[in-house]
Formats: sequence, structure tokens, C-alpha cells
Amino acid sequence: DNKTGEVIIPGASSYNGLNLVPQMGWDNWNAFQCNVNESLLLNTARAMVDYGLRDLGYNYIVLDDCWSIGRNSTGYLVANPEKFPSGMKHVADTLHSMGMKFGMYSSAGVYTCGKYPGSLGYEQKDADLWASWDVDYLKYDNCYNQGQSGNAMLSFNRYDVMSKALNKTGRPILYSLCNWGDDNPFDWAYTISNSWRMSGDVYDSFNRPDSRCPCTETPCAWPGYHCSIMNILNKMTPITSRSQPGAFNDMDMLEVGNGGQSDSEYVVHFSMWAINSSPLLIGTNVLTLSPANLAIYSNPAVLALNQDPSGSAAVRKWQYFVNPDETGEGEIALWTRSMDNGDQVFALLNAGNLSMMMNTTLYDIFLDDATAGAYQAPPELSESWDVYDLWANRMSDEEAGSIINGTAPTIGANSNSTTRYNATATSYADGLMNNNTALYGSKVGTIGPGSQSRFSAMIDRHSAGLYRIRQASSTMRKRDEL
Amino acid sequence: DNKTGEVIIPGASSYNGLNLVPQMGWDNWNAFQCNVNESLLLNTARAMVDYGLRDLGYNYIVLDDCWSIGRNSTGYLVANPEKFPSGMKHVADTLHSMGMKFGMYSSAGVYTCGKYPGSLGYEQKDADLWASWDVDYLKYDNCYNQGQSGNAMLSFNRYDVMSKALNKTGRPILYSLCNWGDDNPFDWAYTISNSWRMSGDVYDSFNRPDSRCPCTETPCAWPGYHCSIMNILNKMTPITSRSQPGAFNDMDMLEVGNGGQSDSEYVVHFSMWAINSSPLLIGTNVLTLSPANLAIYSNPAVLALNQDPSGSAAVRKWQYFVNPDETGEGEIALWTRSMDNGDQVFALLNAGNLSMMMNTTLYDIFLDDATAGAYQAPPELSESWDVYDLWANRMSDEEAGSIINGTAPTIGANSNSTTRYNATATSYADGLMNNNTALYGSKVGTIGPGSQSRFSAMIDRHSAGLYRIRQASSTMRKRDEL
Amino acid sequence: DNKTGEVIIPGASSYNGLNLVPQMGWDNWNAFQCNVNESLLLNTARAMVDYGLRDLGYNYIVLDDCWSIGRNSTGYLVANPEKFPSGMKHVADTLHSMGMKFGMYSSAGVYTCGKYPGSLGYEQKDADLWASWDVDYLKYDNCYNQGQSGNAMLSFNRYDVMSKALNKTGRPILYSLCNWGDDNPFDWAYTISNSWRMSGDVYDSFNRPDSRCPCTETPCAWPGYHCSIMNILNKMTPITSRSQPGAFNDMDMLEVGNGGQSDSEYVVHFSMWAINSSPLLIGTNVLTLSPANLAIYSNPAVLALNQDPSGSAAVRKWQYFVNPDETGEGEIALWTRSMDNGDQVFALLNAGNLSMMMNTTLYDIFLDDATAGAYQAPPELSESWDVYDLWANRMSDEEAGSIINGTAPTIGANSNSTTRYNATATSYADGLMNNNTALYGSKVGTIGPGSQSRFSAMIDRHSAGLYRIRQASSTMRKRDEL
Amino acid sequence: DNKTGEVIIPGASSYNGLNLVPQMGWDNWNAFQCNVNESLLLNTARAMVDYGLRDLGYNYIVLDDCWSIGRNSTGYLVANPEKFPSGMKHVADTLHSMGMKFGMYSSAGVYTCGKYPGSLGYEQKDADLWASWDVDYLKYDNCYNQGQSGNAMLSFNRYDVMSKALNKTGRPILYSLCNWGDDNPFDWAYTISNSWRMSGDVYDSFNRPDSRCPCTETPCAWPGYHCSIMNILNKMTPITSRSQPGAFNDMDMLEVGNGGQSDSEYVVHFSMWAINSSPLLIGTNVLTLSPANLAIYSNPAVLALNQDPSGSAAVRKWQYFVNPDETGEGEIALWTRSMDNGDQVFALLNAGNLSMMMNTTLYDIFLDDATAGAYQAPPELSESWDVYDLWANRMSDEEAGSIINGTAPTIGANSNSTTRYNATATSYADGLMNNNTALYGSKVGTIGPGSQSRFSAMIDRHSAGLYRIRQASSTMRKRDEL
Repeated sequence: DNKTGEVIIPGASSYNGLNLVPQMGWDNWNAFQCNVNESLLLNTARAMVDYGLRDLGYNYIVLDDCWSIGRNSTGYLVANPEKFPSGMKHVADTLHSMGMKFGMYSSAGVYTCGKYPGSLGYEQKDADLWASWDVDYLKYDNCYNQGQSGNAMLSFNRYDVMSKALNKTGRPILYSLCNWGDDNPFDWAYTISNSWRMSGDVYDSFNRPDSRCPCTETPCAWPGYHCSIMNILNKMTPITSRSQPGAFNDMDMLEVGNGGQSDSEYVVHFSMWAINSSPLLIGTNVLTLSPANLAIYSNPAVLALNQDPSGSAAVRKWQYFVNPDETGEGEIALWTRSMDNGDQVFALLNAGNLSMMMNTTLYDIFLDDATAGAYQAPPELSESWDVYDLWANRMSDEEAGSIINGTAPTIGANSNSTTRYNATATSYADGLMNNNTALYGSKVGTIGPGSQSRFSAMIDRHSAGLYRIRQASSTMRKRDEL
Repeated sequence: DNKTGEVIIPGASSYNGLNLVPQMGWDNWNAFQCNVNESLLLNTARAMVDYGLRDLGYNYIVLDDCWSIGRNSTGYLVANPEKFPSGMKHVADTLHSMGMKFGMYSSAGVYTCGKYPGSLGYEQKDADLWASWDVDYLKYDNCYNQGQSGNAMLSFNRYDVMSKALNKTGRPILYSLCNWGDDNPFDWAYTISNSWRMSGDVYDSFNRPDSRCPCTETPCAWPGYHCSIMNILNKMTPITSRSQPGAFNDMDMLEVGNGGQSDSEYVVHFSMWAINSSPLLIGTNVLTLSPANLAIYSNPAVLALNQDPSGSAAVRKWQYFVNPDETGEGEIALWTRSMDNGDQVFALLNAGNLSMMMNTTLYDIFLDDATAGAYQAPPELSESWDVYDLWANRMSDEEAGSIINGTAPTIGANSNSTTRYNATATSYADGLMNNNTALYGSKVGTIGPGSQSRFSAMIDRHSAGLYRIRQASSTMRKRDEL
Repeated sequence: DNKTGEVIIPGASSYNGLNLVPQMGWDNWNAFQCNVNESLLLNTARAMVDYGLRDLGYNYIVLDDCWSIGRNSTGYLVANPEKFPSGMKHVADTLHSMGMKFGMYSSAGVYTCGKYPGSLGYEQKDADLWASWDVDYLKYDNCYNQGQSGNAMLSFNRYDVMSKALNKTGRPILYSLCNWGDDNPFDWAYTISNSWRMSGDVYDSFNRPDSRCPCTETPCAWPGYHCSIMNILNKMTPITSRSQPGAFNDMDMLEVGNGGQSDSEYVVHFSMWAINSSPLLIGTNVLTLSPANLAIYSNPAVLALNQDPSGSAAVRKWQYFVNPDETGEGEIALWTRSMDNGDQVFALLNAGNLSMMMNTTLYDIFLDDATAGAYQAPPELSESWDVYDLWANRMSDEEAGSIINGTAPTIGANSNSTTRYNATATSYADGLMNNNTALYGSKVGTIGPGSQSRFSAMIDRHSAGLYRIRQASSTMRKRDEL
Repeated sequence: DNKTGEVIIPGASSYNGLNLVPQMGWDNWNAFQCNVNESLLLNTARAMVDYGLRDLGYNYIVLDDCWSIGRNSTGYLVANPEKFPSGMKHVADTLHSMGMKFGMYSSAGVYTCGKYPGSLGYEQKDADLWASWDVDYLKYDNCYNQGQSGNAMLSFNRYDVMSKALNKTGRPILYSLCNWGDDNPFDWAYTISNSWRMSGDVYDSFNRPDSRCPCTETPCAWPGYHCSIMNILNKMTPITSRSQPGAFNDMDMLEVGNGGQSDSEYVVHFSMWAINSSPLLIGTNVLTLSPANLAIYSNPAVLALNQDPSGSAAVRKWQYFVNPDETGEGEIALWTRSMDNGDQVFALLNAGNLSMMMNTTLYDIFLDDATAGAYQAPPELSESWDVYDLWANRMSDEEAGSIINGTAPTIGANSNSTTRYNATATSYADGLMNNNTALYGSKVGTIGPGSQSRFSAMIDRHSAGLYRIRQASSTMRKRDEL
């Protein structure tokens, strides 16, 4: 809308000009924890290129904790030569040669969470070293922070030191804060970083409450960890407006493929992370990825939401508690989001224990417009909208298997596949402008005109319908043009 | 009462001598957001003069966010020349020539909420510039504050810098804090400002809970936004005593006219803002205002409450949860307030889903007197009081339409209209002293003597009865004279 | 017990050596608010002497807010010459000549709560002035504190400045903090003051919830005001251990006599303040005090609890929610306390809507001993205890009336009145040692031996039974002698 | 696991190299409070040697509050010569000669909790003095801290001063923080101390709620005291991951033997403290210890859990509210923990009012592995596990009585007793490696293979079953070897 469109302050779209859409890539932690080494990174990167994941936008390979052996006599970190016999610069060079980028990990404390040396007090030395290795990304954790937390000012100041150190290197380095939502980073991190974690660590469970993740809402005085997908999703509700181009709420790395959830639960997880503009970091073993999970990670229609230039996030318009399952949890909800091209997206989320016929009205979708002022009935309510099911064209296991086997055809520019896409060849924005079918799923109905017009669908237990709607006729222009 | 009456410290009634009754005017945000320009402001001002709104007291035209294009090489803000081709000084001069005043917006952060340049670190330069433009008012927001929040001291210090900068210009500039109740401004803002927002942003809904406004009470750790009328109203209950001449709790701008609520809901909204001495800033498109909404904004009997020299706010004497509507919300409540001339005001608020016969006792109205000490039974309880319905004389749509059409007669001093008033010609205080009927609505009954004496009225669903009571005989003097 | 008994650090019993038992006296605020003047203070003092209140220990006359007219050119406060034509020194001298002491009020802010000049930044000047007037007491409020609050350090530092300033004057001045429990003064105020308010302001209601007093427990993020007796009492439960000789939790001034509660409710109020070692400041108009209320204020058996050298407070051993009344509130509770001479006190509190037969076991009374370690069954459980009803000998209205009329006999040392006492002539401690019947009420039964032995009594709605128990035989020594 | 195994930073396992497994010993407070003296300490130490407690690992004798008489003219603390006629150095020497160590107490405030001189401002002087006495341990309390709390930074800085002072003495001194969980020490204390209290003070009750301990969860704004076993246990759930070799969550001293709980309740208390790696400080009168209580304190199979080199703590996998007892409390829960040798431990805890048949699946035990990523079904689920009941071989009262009587045989290295153990002669780790039966209790069944395989047991009211499971065959290696 005009608000962002007219901003003319140089660089204001992001504190360092980077990450105007959420970062995508892979991080080893969820699947491998400290079991890291050179070949894991490079083999994973190679598979991501081969599987088309790079060309869908997954281009950061982030090495997480446990990579160093300490500091040398001049205070510089030393990489573990057994894990990284060719050195970090070699890893970066090789990744770059594949069209990938290299992410590094440290903590804003005296130790990392794994008790390796942290960067507190060594910010410039560490930033300089990473820049000398051609590192492109820093994930910066919160462990062992010497009590430098407890209000926004203490946390801001601590993380700002590294922000300035990275900038001073002169190398563009994406800066990803990992302080678990502590001290409300959604209130202050956007001017010094490109993303910030907004909750305790995810674990591979759809909705099971865990005593280690005590909060169920934001703000949260004790983030904890072992937080389920639904726990983190609902913590997003009051802060989704803080996501913006260049600075995103990070819902933590993806668990798709790690075995703790059903296929439909992973679909919910992936869909909700995508529409909320969370960074999308694959958190499983790519080398053993199943066809079904590759199909989830590779859905271009869903990725196009995440990579939308609006950089905004979704809104939970309603939530009702229903049919609790064996965890004691059960809810249904409607989430919606406005897209840059004037389309709208909505998700009918069924996190209850029974399949349900769910629906939404046009009014619920456009509620914000209907209550936005200068009263004129929102023109959106008088339009008819085509409804596209963004999961309708999910790749079959056969097709995904052929990609894994290396027998699938290559996807290039102007592909007319309905299931696959190459965003390197054609940007998502261009694809949407060209009505690329892979980005729109399949039309399943219409909704409107009229505020009480409804779209209904049967949604399975622990599943979600994800829909993009666009004007049925060309008579209505997008909001910016009004 | 004596407490305020006897204060003899020079200037103590307000930190800068301004705003002894709540500011009134118009702010473009609720209706137009960033779509601002010179002609919007001037055309709106002209209409406000024509519609008699200026003479009712609405005299500030507040330009909200998105008016600049950045800073120049000497660090001064530059107004957007496309939006303001005649320059800001011209806007101020023109407004002044109409008898209006000019309000400006910035944020106590590095950016405004719309990501235009903020004033943090540029306070004196910006204050000087605005003073040079003859600006009369500053709305000062809280976005992008670099973590300088989290306790009262951090917020106080940040806002105090601008307070001192404005004072130093020598120009009287009303200072309106907009930090959403963060860090409890009702605890510290009265010595450095003229009003402070006490909640997250309002949206045009009577009582629908929204996931973006998570708190339902004060204090609130995360103000959010998209807060309903009833949500904000109930957040006032513990802090109404902090409103005082020169320094008011700001419940946010009015939504009357923006289309999200019914006529009776807007009546509740306007009535409750008025009796709580909230600033009254029209937040809709004045140029397309409907007769019904003009009639609400123009009710002189209600405005006289808001502009009462007592500068105090109302008290919720009781609240009961009843008949939830489709939002799940439902309550009835009694709010009361003491007026400067010895009258009392009470509101019977029905925010439940069914029309109800509601009532109050004289005891409930005078509860505070009955529990105030030095025991002598409150003389108020032995009196008989005439009850005036302050909405009884609301202008008809026909009359309001004639004002909009320019065919209505002019209202001057000593008008005997029962529906219209000119506070420029005759102050509200003088009008009350003269028993101007436009300020008293219509007598609908009596209550008292006796603590259990009751006044009853049928109150519609989502509506309120607003009553002013005065002694039936002249035998009782006002409290100050006892 | 030994813990306190053996402390041998000079002065450690109180930071300034004062107030080893809770202060008693009168403060004008609850009854007169800002309507203060010289004759009110002196006439009240005279009545307190005449009514025997001084000799019961009520010896501070505290002048609350609204006494100044500002600061003079050298920065010293100037008393209002219309209210205090003879000057403050004269007030102090006159009070001293009556055997009374003089208390003064200010605020740790730029204004007092009534917007008179506050002492923030003028601490030493103000302390010096008060000392020059021979002031004996400072009540120090929290209004207009310029955001210097929000954590313990900010509040501690602000109040510590005045603490040091008072000490520096060389005059013994009791220092009473009035910061409403903000920032948990029970955690830090004991080393710099003699008492601290632990809740929002009391109002004259037994248990009616009021929207201005939102907290129902300690700690509390927003103290508010208009807090009922039961609200404040229950906020004491987690912090009673912080009361100690020289430094007391202040539950706010007494409302007995102000008309908002029934006689039995005032008995509860007075009893519970007394056993929790709250300062006891009469908050009503002494000159119009009714016989019934004088009888409550004058019960020596209850005052002896409050003035017990143990300086400790009571413990709520159990609480059950029962029979809500028209306010929606209803509970019964057992409170107990250990006295310096080895006696125990317990209160059976009925704050429900119906009269009830209530009881306690000996185990409940001695629970803390039974769970205190080094296991040996507490000898207390094998003893038989005489139960004394401390309200049994309350003065009749006739007797109290004769005191007010000036026709009652004088009470001196060694009085054998069962209803009246002169603590100036014989200290409460000496009276207890001598088994003065006025301090023991009337024996109404025995309890024990045996942990399940019970004492039962019918307790009226909104009333309390207050009992002191002592060993039936002399075979058991007090705990210190074991 | 690898995470800790590969840490190669010198000293990183503990900030001072001490306490790699939780400290064990005795502290006088729970049983004797201020009644301390030389012979109590030395006689207790002698009994602990005689009863085999020292050889089980209980080797610290911690002298708690009330030992000094103030500071001398040079600012050094002076021990009370009546209580410690031979001087502190003599106490230390004597303890050392018995193979015991000496612990000392102070507070990070101006006074100790008993109002003896505190160490705030005297840190180095006090540390030097204690080092000169050959003290081995400091328990450092939080009373009278002058408002230096309220966020992590204030508390960290205050406790860090003593940490540095102790280090500077050059003597190894275990540093035990006692700040009641205030300001979340689990977030910052591990880099400056060896353990930290995580809750308010324990009292000798299984689950009775007490008004003095208001919190029921972590984090807690007001720790209070008089917290029950179940209250403290449940506060551990979100923070158990913060326990690590050298730095432990301290659940407070043991109440076993103090008489407030049943035998089975003490078993729960001891078991749950042990598996959560809490320091184990006997808090009763050792000289009058009953055989039953000695048997609890002496269970080597349970102590082996506490002293496991993993240094980790347990996880509550599920909790259900059931059958409340007379306190209104009632729950059952499953707690599990991974041991260093690849074994697992689980506790079936019945804190409800009725005996129940309880069970767990293998999936619940290995839930964390099943949701840990890089999906491969956890090999643990395909194994069969032998289940050992760790309380099955609890010493009989006869055997424990013979130890107390001095008639029991001595236990040395390679003992084949099933009930007794000498960890001085053979470390717990060696004993486990050798399958010492005293460390494994008795085999009572098997569980697995298969995620839904179950182990069931009848668990009495207010009791717990505590089980260690190990692979039935040798085919599976521990996780580190995979």
C-alpha cells in the first residue's frame, strides 16, 4: 500500500539493504545438532541444487553450533580442523560456486549454547574473520549472555554491537537474531537485523504441549524450548504486523521430514510459516528426504506467498476451540493475508480432532478493509473472486521421486509445469504477473460478491486448506491504483 | 474540589500551561492513513468551520504520518513538495486564518511508524522547524525506538527530550504522546506532556476481540493494536484518576463515521470518550460525513462534559457480564462522573446482546462520597435530583443535513437552540451557568432523595443512556461551598 | 526466637533506631483530605489526650497533603499561613507539650499527589526545614516521580536520598514510605525506612471490589487505589514475614468511624491490621467519634498484639471461598501469630455472607512448628491452652460515651479495669507479664492437648473471632528458653 | 552426547572447575536455624562418617546463618566466640581431618537474612577471611540487597562481585547462590557459580499450598518461602535443561527426617531431587536420624543418578490432575532422564489421593529422540529394555538400625552388598560399569521393543516408582557410539 510504497529514505527498506523477502535455505541443527562437518554441508548443498531447491530460493547453507575449537592466541576463533579439513574459506568458495551462500553461527554470550566460545566481547574480531571467509549470513544466539537481558535496552545494546561489527566489515552479511523472543525483539530488532526469533525453539510436534515450553502467548516471560507448531503459530498473532521487507519474525527452522508429524501436519506447518513470512530454513536431512517431504518443500504456489514483496504476515481473523485430541488441544482458525498484486490468501486451519466442513465469509477476509476508515464500503466486497487451492497441484510422490532419482526433466524459464517452478529463471513476482499455473494451484470455486458470501471446504483433522483468491474480472484494480 | 481548587503553584495546572480541557479536532489517520496532502487538510478545515464543528471546539487539524521526504543536508526534515506544494507554513497560516490550529506528527524513534524519518536524536532541530512553521501541536509516536523502553525511566527520558525541545522553542505547542500505554505513561507523562495514549490503537469495532490486541486490562505488557471500543474503555477503569486539567488519558481518535459500527454503538463510543475526558479527534472523512454522524459529533450536551473544567474522568461503579453477542462479549456497566458545577453524570451502558431495563441507585452514583471519610452522611443522598437525558435533543438527520447543505441558520451567542451550540461565542461553562438547554438535553425524571432511590430506563442492545443530574432545589450548594 | 534475639549489630534492629513497634496516631487524609489547618490538628490532639487514645499509644499527629503554598526564593517550602497562622513550629511545640508528636507529608516527586510542591531534588532542604520545625515523622508519597520507578533499584535510590537527608539532620524522624507497594518495597525498604505501604490506598469498604484497585494479590503491577479491607488483607499473605521491629508493612490508615462499614466489619479491619503489625493511624474525625468506634480503637487487648515487641505479623493458615455476598466476594480464613511471651493468637475470619460455626485445630495453629525441622514433635501440641476472647471485654457504648463526655474515671498505672488501659503508665509488655485482664479479654475455653484438638465458635457474617491462647499450666516454657 | 563431549575450551565445564556433579552434604538450617555451634557441626560430621554418609558422597558440612558477632575495626567479620570457641579455622581443620569439607554462609546484602552482617560491599575482605580459614564452600543468600535486583543485570552484577572475589583468593571454593530464583538465575548464574536456588525456600510438606509461597510456576515474580515439595518440583519443569556439570539448579535442602511428611512422601522428595541433579544437602538432625530416614538418604542406586557425570536433569513428559487430597492438590506425572552410560531413568509419580496402576510407553520415555530430527526411527524403540526398580533394595530398618548402632559391617571397595555402597572406595561411575547391584536395585520387568510397549506398576498414594532401564541385549551401543 501507499505506506510502504512511498518511503523514500535511502536504505530504509532494510537496515543493511538485505533480505527484502524472507531468507530461505537449510540449517543443520534440527536434524544433526552438533554432528557437523564439511562434507555434510557440501553434500547437502549439492543435493539442494540437484533437487531444484536452490532454484526455488533455498540458497543459504547455515552451519549451526559446534564448529570451532576455541580462540587462538590473538583472539580469533579457530575452526575445528577435523570437521573442516579444507577450512571455512574453502566451504564458502565451494558453496558460492554452486550458487549457494554460506551461513555461520555464534552467540551473543561468552559461550554458544553448546558451550563453544561465544562472541560477546569479540564481536569485531569475529565479524572480521567471517567476512574474510566470505560468510554471507550470521545466526546469532542468546546463550550465556552474562545477565545482559531483562529489558529491551539491555538486549538491544548487546545485539547492536554485532550489527555494527558486521556492517563495518563492508561485506553484506544477513544478520539473523536468535534470542527466542526474549525482551520482545519484535519491538526493536528491525533496525539492527534482518530477522529475529519470536519464540522458544520448535520441536517436531504438531500441537503437543511440553513442560519445557511454558508460554502459550506473546509476550512471554520465559521462552523455553520444545515448542510445538501450533504453540509458535499462535504466538505470532499479536506481532504479525512487525514483519516487513528486510526484517522478519522468525518462527524457527522447519521440521518437515523429521518424522514427528503426519503429512498433513507438515503441510500446516509449512503453509503457516510461509504465509507469515517466516524465514524458511529446511531443518531435516536433505540427503534422505522422502518424495512426499520434497513435494511439500517444493510447492511453488506456497513459496510464492512467502517470497511476496509485501513482506507482511497473516492475521488470525478468528479462532474457536473444538474437539480436543489426545494432547488436550483442539482449535479451528481462519488466517488471511493481503498479497502485493492485490490477491488475498486465506487458510482454513483445522487443528481439532475431527474432520470438519469449514467456511469463511468475504467479510471475514476483508474485515480490515471494512473497518479501516474514511467510510466507503470496501470495493472488494462487491467483487467476485476466484478461489485457487494452493495445494491442489502438489507434486505426486512419483514425480518427486523422479527428481530425487535424477530422472525428472529440468525446469527453466517459462516452464508450464503445474507442479514445479524455477524462481532463479523467472522470479515469483514475474511468474505471478504471467499467471504461471504453478504459482496458483488449481481453481476450486468462487466467492463473492457480498460480504456474507461464503467459501466452504471439508478440512481433514490436523490439516489446512490454503487458498489464494483473485478478482474474477479485470474491472477492479489493485489497492495501490485506486 | 478543594484539592485542585487550592493549588497555587504557578503553572502547575499543566506542565506548559496548555490544554486545560481535552484537545478537540481532527486527525487524518483513521480515515486516510498515509494519503495526506495540503488540500485534504484545508478542505477538511473549511468543512469543519462550515459545519459548526470549529465553534463546538474541534479546532486542531492534525496531520499524521507520511508527510516528509527525509532530511536535508543540514539535518532538517523536508516536507513532501508533491503533497504540500505550498509548504507547511502556508498550511499553518491558512488554518490560523480560519481560526483553526495545526498539528504535526513524528515518532520518538529513528523512523515513524510508516518508516519516514523519526525524531530520535533530532529533537531540537525538529521542534525548531515546526515552531518556525507555526505548528501548534505534536503527536509523538513510539515506533522504532531502538529498545529505549521496558521501564518507566527509559520511556520517560526519551519523551522528555522532546518535551524540553518544544518548550525551548518558545512557541506554545500542545504535546500529545502516542506510546500506546507502554511503560504506563499514566504514571509519569503528566509532568512532560498534555496527553498520552493509554492503549493500543483503536479500530472501528464496538467489541469484537482481535488477536492483534491481546490485553484486556491495564497495565498491559503488549499494547498491540486493532483494539475495540469496549476493550479500550475497560482499560480506562484503573487509571481514570490520572486524567487532570492539562494532562489527559488519550483513548485514541474517534471512529464515528467510519462504517464499522451501528449508530447506537457510535453513540456509546462518543459518550464514553467524552465523559472520560479523552481528547476528541474526529477520525473520519469530514467531507463525506453523514447527517447522523454529524449529529453525534455535534451534540453540545455531551461535548460540555468533555470540556468541563474539572478535567477529570469517569468511574465504572459496577460491571456485570450478560448476554454475550456473536463476538462472545457481553456486559452492562454503570459509569459516573462529578462535574465542576456540582452536577453528576451517569451512563447506563448496555454492551450485551439484548435490550434491558437498567437502573442505578443514588447510592451507586455517590458511592465515593459515601465512603470518603469524616463520617457525615453525604448530603447528596438527601437531595432530589432532576435527571436530564443528554441524547434526547440529538439533532435530527434533517437538521444535520441542512447544516451540511449550508441551509441551516447560523448559531451565535445566546442561541436558544436545543440541539446546536456555539462554544466560541459562549463557553460551555457560561452556557451551563445560564442553563442553556442545548447543554442539558431533556429532563426525563428525578432520582432521590434516599440512597436506594432508583432511576430506570430501557437501554437498547449495544447502546447507552447518558444522564446529567442536578439538584432539584437550590437548597444544596456545590461541594466546594460546603 | 533466637534469630532476632541474638542480633548484636548496633542499630540493626532499625535503620535509625526508631519504631521498634508499629507507629500509632492519627492522620487527617481519610477523613479530611486537603481540608487541613492548625486547629484541626490541635483540637484532634487534645481530644486524643482526653479520650485516653494518647495513653493507649496513639501519639503521632500526621498532617497530610496540601499544607504548603510553594517554595520561597531560597528553595525552602512555605507553609500556608491561612491554614497555619501560628506556623509549623508552633504546631509542633503545642503537640509536644501535650505528649504528642508531629508528622509531616511530602512526595518523592516533583509534586505531591495534590499537586503541591514535592521533595524530589529538594530532599536535604526539606528535611532540614522539617527538623528545624521539630517534626518527628515523615509520610513520603510516590506521585509525580518523573518515571523513576519500574524496578527496585530506581525506587530504592529515590527513597534512599530522603532517608539519608533525614538522618543527616540529626533529629530522630520516623520515615514512613507511601509508595503503594510499587516495585515491592517489602524487598528493600527495611534498611532505609520504618514502614512502607504495601498496597494501593484503602477505602471505607469491607470487601467490595472496585475497578480502580485491579490487583487482588502481591506482587502487583498496578497498585491503584480504592482497595477494600479484604483486598489489602489478602495482599499481605506472601509478605508478612517482612514485618520486623523497626520496619513494618503498612496496610494504610484506619477507616473505623468513617461510615462505610458495619460495626463488625470495623472490628475485622481493626483486628487484622493489629495482628499484622500494621501502623495504626486513626483516619476519622476524632472530634465526632461515636462511642462504638471509640470502643474499637481503644481495645487494649488488641492493641497489645499490635505493640508486641516481636514486631512480626500473622500468617493465613487456610482460606476457603464460601457464601458470596452481594459484592460477589465470600471467604473464611484462619490467621495466626506467635507473640513475644510465648502466647499464640488466632483469628477466625468470616467474610462470607452467612454466620458460620468455625473452628481450628491445634495443629493448624502450630503448623509452622510442626514443619520446622530437627524433628521432635512440637511440645506445643502436647500442651493444654487457655483461650481468651480479645473482644469479650470491649467497652460498652455507655462506658465509651462517658469517656467522650469527660465523665469517665482516669486510668493510671496498675488499673484493674477489664476494658481500659494506660500504656503510658504501664507498658503493654509489663501489663502482659502481670496478666492485666484488660490485655487478655475473657477466657472462653481451652484447646489441646493433641494436634486434632479443636476450638469452635459461631462467627457472624462479616465478623471475626480474635483469640489469644496461653499455656494452661506453667510447665511449658517459651520457645526461647527451650 | 556429542554436544558436551566435544567441548574443548579449558575450564568450560565449570566456571571454576568445581562441582562437576551436584554437591552433597549437610546444612544446619532446616533443622536448627540459628542454633549453631562448633560441636553441632563436628558431632554431625562424625556421625556422617560413622553412618557411611560421607562415603556415599555427603562431604560438605555447611554452617548456615547466625555465626558472626559483627565486623572488627578493620572490617573483617568476627565469628561468635561463644558458639565457636575454638575458632573457624579449627572447625575447618577438624572437618578436613575427617575427610569432610567446610561450607560457610553469607548474604549478597547489607545483612544476612537473620540480620547479621552481610557481605555487600565487603566481598573481597570476606572471601579472603574465609579462604584464610580454609573454607571450601559459600552459600550466598539474597536478603537486604538494597534494591539491587529487578532484572538479570542487577542480580548478575551483584553476585558476580563475590564470584570474582572467591576466585581471587586462589582457594577452590564452591559457590552456591541462594537467591530463590529471583531474576531467573537459570539464565545467567552458570558462568559465575556452581549452583543456584531456583525457588523460594522449601518447607517440610509434600504438597500443601501455603499463602507464603504464591507462585506455582517458573518464572516467578515473587518467590516467597514455605514452598512444598511438589510446588518446587513442578517449578523445575521449564528449566531442567539449564542444569549442567558444574552448575546446577538447586531445589533447596532436603527435609527427609524432619517429620512433616510420610515415608513414601520423603521417598518422592529424595527421588525427584536426585534425578533432577539438585544438590543434596541433608537438612535434618543427623544425630537423631531414624533408621527409615537413614535408609532413604543412603540408597546408592538413587544417589548414582544424582552423581551421574551427565549432570543433566529430568523432564516431565506428562502430567494429569487427578484425585485431589485434603490440600486440594492431586496429580500424576511421568518424569524421565537419560544417563551417561546410555541407560534411561523414569519415575511414575503419584501425587494424587488414591493408589493407582500407572504406566508408561517406551515412546513417552524416548519422545525426545523420536522428535529430534534427521529422521530415522530412534533405535531405542526397537530394543528391549530391562527395568530395574531403584527402591527395591532399600535397606531394612534393621540394617539401617545396625549402622546407627555401630554394629553393621564396613563397606569397602568391591562390596557386593545390594543395599549399601562406598563411593569413596569405588566411584559411582565405576560401580555402574561393573554392574554393581547396589546401584541397580532389582529387575522387575522389561519394556519394548516397540513404541507402544508399556511398563505398568501399582503406585501408592503420595509415592513414586523410580526405575532405571538398560538394554536387554548388548547389541545396541550408547548414543555417543552410533
